[in-house]
Formats: sequence, structure tokens, C-alpha cells
Amino acid sequence: MSSVEELIAKIKILEDQLRQKKENESVETVTVRDKITSMSAEVVDSNPYSRLMALKRMGIVENYEKIREFTVAVVGIGGVGSVTAEMLTRCGIGKLLLFDYDKVELANMNRLFFQPHQAGMSKVEAAAKTLNFINPDVEFETYNYNITTVENFQHFMDRVKYGSLKGKRVDLVLSCVDNFEARMAINTACNELNQVWIESGVSENAVSGHIQVVIPGETACFACAPPLVVASNIDEKTLKKEGVCAASLPTTMGIVAGFLVQNTLKYLLGFGSVTYYLGYSALQDFFPTMAMKPNPICDDSYCRLRQKEFKEKEALKPKETLKAKEEEKIVHEENDWGISVISETTEEELRMSEGETVPGLVEGVTLAYTKPASTQEPQGESVQESNQSLEELMAQMKSL
Amino acid sequence: MSSVEELIAKIKILEDQLRQKKENESVETVTVRDKITSMSAEVVDSNPYSRLMALKRMGIVENYEKIREFTVAVVGIGGVGSVTAEMLTRCGIGKLLLFDYDKVELANMNRLFFQPHQAGMSKVEAAAKTLNFINPDVEFETYNYNITTVENFQHFMDRVKYGSLKGKRVDLVLSCVDNFEARMAINTACNELNQVWIESGVSENAVSGHIQVVIPGETACFACAPPLVVASNIDEKTLKKEGVCAASLPTTMGIVAGFLVQNTLKYLLGFGSVTYYLGYSALQDFFPTMAMKPNPICDDSYCRLRQKEFKEKEALKPKETLKAKEEEKIVHEENDWGISVISETTEEELRMSEGETVPGLVEGVTLAYTKPASTQEPQGESVQESNQSLEELMAQMKSL
Repeated sequence: MSSVEELIAKIKILEDQLRQKKENESVETVTVRDKITSMSAEVVDSNPYSRLMALKRMGIVENYEKIREFTVAVVGIGGVGSVTAEMLTRCGIGKLLLFDYDKVELANMNRLFFQPHQAGMSKVEAAAKTLNFINPDVEFETYNYNITTVENFQHFMDRVKYGSLKGKRVDLVLSCVDNFEARMAINTACNELNQVWIESGVSENAVSGHIQVVIPGETACFACAPPLVVASNIDEKTLKKEGVCAASLPTTMGIVAGFLVQNTLKYLLGFGSVTYYLGYSALQDFFPTMAMKPNPICDDSYCRLRQKEFKEKEALKPKETLKAKEEEKIVHEENDWGISVISETTEEELRMSEGETVPGLVEGVTLAYTKPASTQEPQGESVQESNQSLEELMAQMKSL
Repeated sequence: MSSVEELIAKIKILEDQLRQKKENESVETVTVRDKITSMSAEVVDSNPYSRLMALKRMGIVENYEKIREFTVAVVGIGGVGSVTAEMLTRCGIGKLLLFDYDKVELANMNRLFFQPHQAGMSKVEAAAKTLNFINPDVEFETYNYNITTVENFQHFMDRVKYGSLKGKRVDLVLSCVDNFEARMAINTACNELNQVWIESGVSENAVSGHIQVVIPGETACFACAPPLVVASNIDEKTLKKEGVCAASLPTTMGIVAGFLVQNTLKYLLGFGSVTYYLGYSALQDFFPTMAMKPNPICDDSYCRLRQKEFKEKEALKPKETLKAKEEEKIVHEENDWGISVISETTEEELRMSEGETVPGLVEGVTLAYTKPASTQEPQGESVQESNQSLEELMAQMKSL
């Protein structure tokens, strides 16, 4: 048996080791800041909001502090969604609701935000932990589930309806998902709840993307037009089974997240003008913009109801105000009925299919689906001419 | 004195605590991946390069693996530079040289990348630590100094010249600095070394930004035109002294970093087309592009030498190739001599100064300096008409 002296010496060594470990830890934790009760514009190194409050002094934003009252739901915490959540967190948003059912993998390390040691953790849990550390003033609510199942969809609707800081509806829903079903679920929920949302997407080949603001009844919903906008953005799960995956780049995803959050800030804080559709084509640095009116014969009954409500509301407004507002809010380009999207095809496919674009599209914008050149005469030629054409085109697209 | 039993019990408790601490640590460190010797396209969750190698399969990039051979120098590791370095790291760049003399502060937390626990650390050290953790395959070299002092400038030149993976010159220099002197230092070094670089900038009011590719002798250098491009991007140090600071947003900075790295990837890996000047105006989502020819009477003697060399090189080329290449590489817009920049002023200032823009500018593009409306007749009217006008305008601007 050891002598008392030896035991005491051993205790001393162990205590030293333990103290050292604790000291190392404290470097990481002690410097993390406390919650801040109100945003200050004071220019000191220790103020995390000085550079944001400067937006007020410079006349860009009238009341920057108002950002603390807003709640935003981010659906999909992947390459676009995680950066979106980080930007909003650093801007000092009041509350974030995060939805995702996926886990962090090393295969996600080619985009911003997640780090290798988080591999295996759920994306929402890993994100909330990092974001809370970056800005403890933001409130987080996380849901590690797929919103498209019946049960989860009801719960998702419920959180959109009552999830804000004051227990009321959220201020905005941001779609950062990677598949058609999830986008349709968000669309269905937002039409029913009369909730404004912004859709975002990045093409399968990683070199183009877009954002699209959906105001139920006022702009085209996701069901109004054939689902061309995200047609080639195939679900990762399906791709992986075949041993291939979509490409992705931190650049394109960071830019799309930047556009999404910049327009979110403009919408919430009321500065600049919100862009209803903004595309990004990386190969040529091309940025198409446009706006789409809703489809009066949309499949979604709530969309049709919102359109009716919007028309009634507009009719009640004094004539002059109505005119001014409409002009300010949506720029109706020539292709009111053009179902269009920034090309998700390669440059070559684009060139090959040039003779086939639907007339009335914004220059440089083509359909996501490009039919092989050999098939029969393009039938979409009448799109611009009658309301029926959209239905015809939808039928065509569905039969593809 | 304690009994032997008590001492042994205490040892057991300490050992348990220590084991626990070590276990907690191992969660953080064990899952971090080892270096990878060659990039694989295999689609498995554990492959950090599968989504990048997919760019090859999809026909976007011919040889993605080549990215491992490149070295990029990033000068300025702030809001744009840190995100730039992170994007390149996640893309698997061969080597990064990081230059900055600043420390991380809580006041930087409104942009992406740095986290609160890094406050007080040097930006280059904090960045290299995080980036090495994210991707251990990338090699890092950091310099915690101001490149504008005589001694450091020589060392900076030396690293640009010999800092690559093979001890040769770097492949690209990216300027992410926030002041005029640092940009001029990079310009001077790159003209002397005949080194391609890309300048980037974000306006003081946080809602606009740009990137500009400088190819010595081929496109305008930073000294060719009056320094309007970054005129309103005042050095932080000066601003802070007066108790005010420039505004900044994670969105604008993330987007500018995205544009910078996307064009870096296009330049290094040879896909798409590199955009020589790309502006971003957040309030309206407006993206002006243009190209500027170098100034034959530029103040920088090395710039004039590079212009001479470029002309001689071009003259030696067979006529046809020359024509095709020129058309492909630079789109000479109408304003060959227009000194122009995306507006860094407020919407109101812009409207007020509308009558004063220099003729020949791309639509929507104005000068960074807007003279008060009451001063004498604008003297820059002749810019488009003769080579002399640029000199005159420079003199005017200098006297402001």
C-alpha cells in the first residue's frame, strides 16, 4: 500500500491536471457575452450591435431595434438554411424556428456553417447550439422532423400560427428545402394561413439559384405554375441511392442565402424594395428579376380564396392609392403568364434548346425542363395569348 | 491528517472527474477527420469532397482536383476576407496566405465567421485555427502585420513572389481590406510583380459592394482611375476615433465574398466567364457590370510597363486568335474611359446628384463622390471625348 505522502502527492498532481483542464475550458466559455437587454449604438469594441445600429444613423433603416420583435421560421437547415439562420442570428433577430430532419455529415463540409466535429448530430440541434453561442439574445425553437408527414405537418402549421415571441403567428417563413414535396407542404400551409413566405433554391449543378417571394393571393404561389422552378433540384435521398449526388458550392449557397436574408431584412424593416423573383447564374454573373401574378385556376383552393380576398381588398382602396401602390410593389413585366425560371441546365443544353423557349420570357430565362430537340412542335407557343394556355402547359409538363 | 482510506477515496473522485473531462474533450476532437491524400468522387456521407467532385460529373469543371495545386493570398481577414478564406478552405484550395493586423472584437459579431470566444485574438490566428479545423488538407501561412509599412511591404512582396505550394508565386491575390492605403499597397506590389489580383469592397452604409479584377497592363489598375471606387469606404480606425463607425451587414459581406470566390474559382479552374467588374446594390437588387481599360498615363510606372508588354504580346499574336480572345475576355462597354462605380450614397443623395453624373457611365452607376448641387458647372463633361479628360478629372478629385 502506498504511503500517505505518496497519496498526497498523487492528489496534488490530479488536482493540478483538473485545474488545467478547467482553465482551458474557461478560455472558451468565460469570454462569451451575456444577454443584452437593449441594442445600443455606442461605438465600442465590445458592442456587437454598433455596426447594425449604424444603419439607422446613415438613414438606411428607420428603426433597426425593431428586428428584436420579429420571428422567422427557417425550413431546411442545409447549405442555404444554415447560413440564412446564421445571418439572421448575427443581425439580432428576435426568434428563430428551425425545422430539419437530417443529420450533419462530412459530405456537407463543402458549404459554410457546419464543422466536422458536428458530424452525426441533428442539423437543428447543431445549428441552435452554435447560433445560441454566437448570439445569446436570439430565442430558438428547433424541430427535428420532416414537415411533410400528416402529423408533423399539423404541428408545423401550429408553430407557424403560434410560434412568435408573443405566441402569435411568425412574421415570415423561409423555405430552404431541397425537394418538391417539402416546398409544396410549405406552400399549402402558407396559403391556408395567409402567411407570406420566401422560397429559395440552388440548381443541381451548383451554378445557379434563385429566391421568390410568395404573398398569398397577390403573387403566384408554388402551385399556380407548373413546378418548373425547382424541377431539376432533385431530392438528395434519391440521388444518393444511385451513387451520385447533386453538386454544391459554398459560394452559390452563400450568395442565395445572402439574397434571401437581405430581402427578408428589407421586408421586415421596411427599407429599399423587396425583389419578388431574383435569379443568379454564376457562369455569366447574370441576375434575372421578374414577378408572376397568381393563377386564377390554381389547384390550391386556399390560393384561389386569397386571390378573391386580395381583389376585394384592392377594390375597396381609393383609386389613386391603389394605382400608386401596385406600381410600387410589383413590376409586371411582359410575361404575366410566362412560367419561367433561371436555367438549371448546362450552357450547351441551353444553347441547344434556344429555339424552344416559351415566348414572353425575360431575356436569358429559360425553362428548367428542356425537351430534346427532336420531339414535335413546341405546344407552349400560345402561353401569352390566353388564360387557358397555362392549363395546357401544366398538362403538357405533367405528362413529360 | 486524513486517513489513507479517505485519501484513496479522494484520488478516485479526482480520477473520475479527470476521466470525465477527457471524455468530453474527445467528443470534440476524435470526430475531426484526418488529412485526405487525394480527392474522391465517391458518394458517401464521410467524403467531404463528393459534392465538389460532382461539378466534374456534371460538366461544369473539367478538372476539379486541380484546386489542390493553387495558392491564394487573402489580404484583410474581416467581414469579406474571413468568409472568402472559409469558402476557399471548404472548396479544398491548396494553400492560403492570410494577412491582417487587427484583432477580433465583439463589434465584428454582426458578420459571418468569427465567434465571441475569439474576441481579443488576432484575426489571422483565429481564422487559421478555425479553418484548419474545418479542412486539415489546406496549408496556411499567416502574417499578423500591416502590409503598408516599408518593412512589411517588402516581406509581403516576397510572400506573393515565393509563397506558393511549390515556393513560387501565388496564383491570385484577393484584396479584402477596408482602406485606401492598403489597396494602393496591393496595387503597387501586383503591378511590379505582374500579379493578377481581385479587389473587393463594401460601402460605408452596408448596402452596396463590388469586385474588380485587375490584370496588370490589360485592365485598369487601382491607380489608373481616380480612387473613386472605394472613396467612401473610410478606414475604420479614423471613424472609431470620432465615435462613429461604418455600418455592416452579414448579407452584403457574404454576397460580396461569394462573388469574389465564385470568380476566383472560375479564374483558377477555367469555367464560365470571369466578370471584371461586378457591383451589387442591395436596395434595388441591381448588379452593374463593366470593364475598364488601363490609363496610358497612369501614375504607376510598372502599370505603364505592363501596358507596353501587353501591347507587344498582343501584337505578336496571329490576327484571328487575338480578335477571338479579346472578345471573349473583356466586353468593352461604351464607357471605355468612364470612371465609375456603384453608388455608395443614399437613395436621396443619388436623386439629388442625378444631374451631375459623368456622361458615358453604365445606367444606374454613379460616382462615389457626389458634389453638392450648388457648386460650379460640372467640369467632367468631356470625359468621353479625349484622353486628357481623365487627367483633368483626377486633378479635380484630388483637390476635393
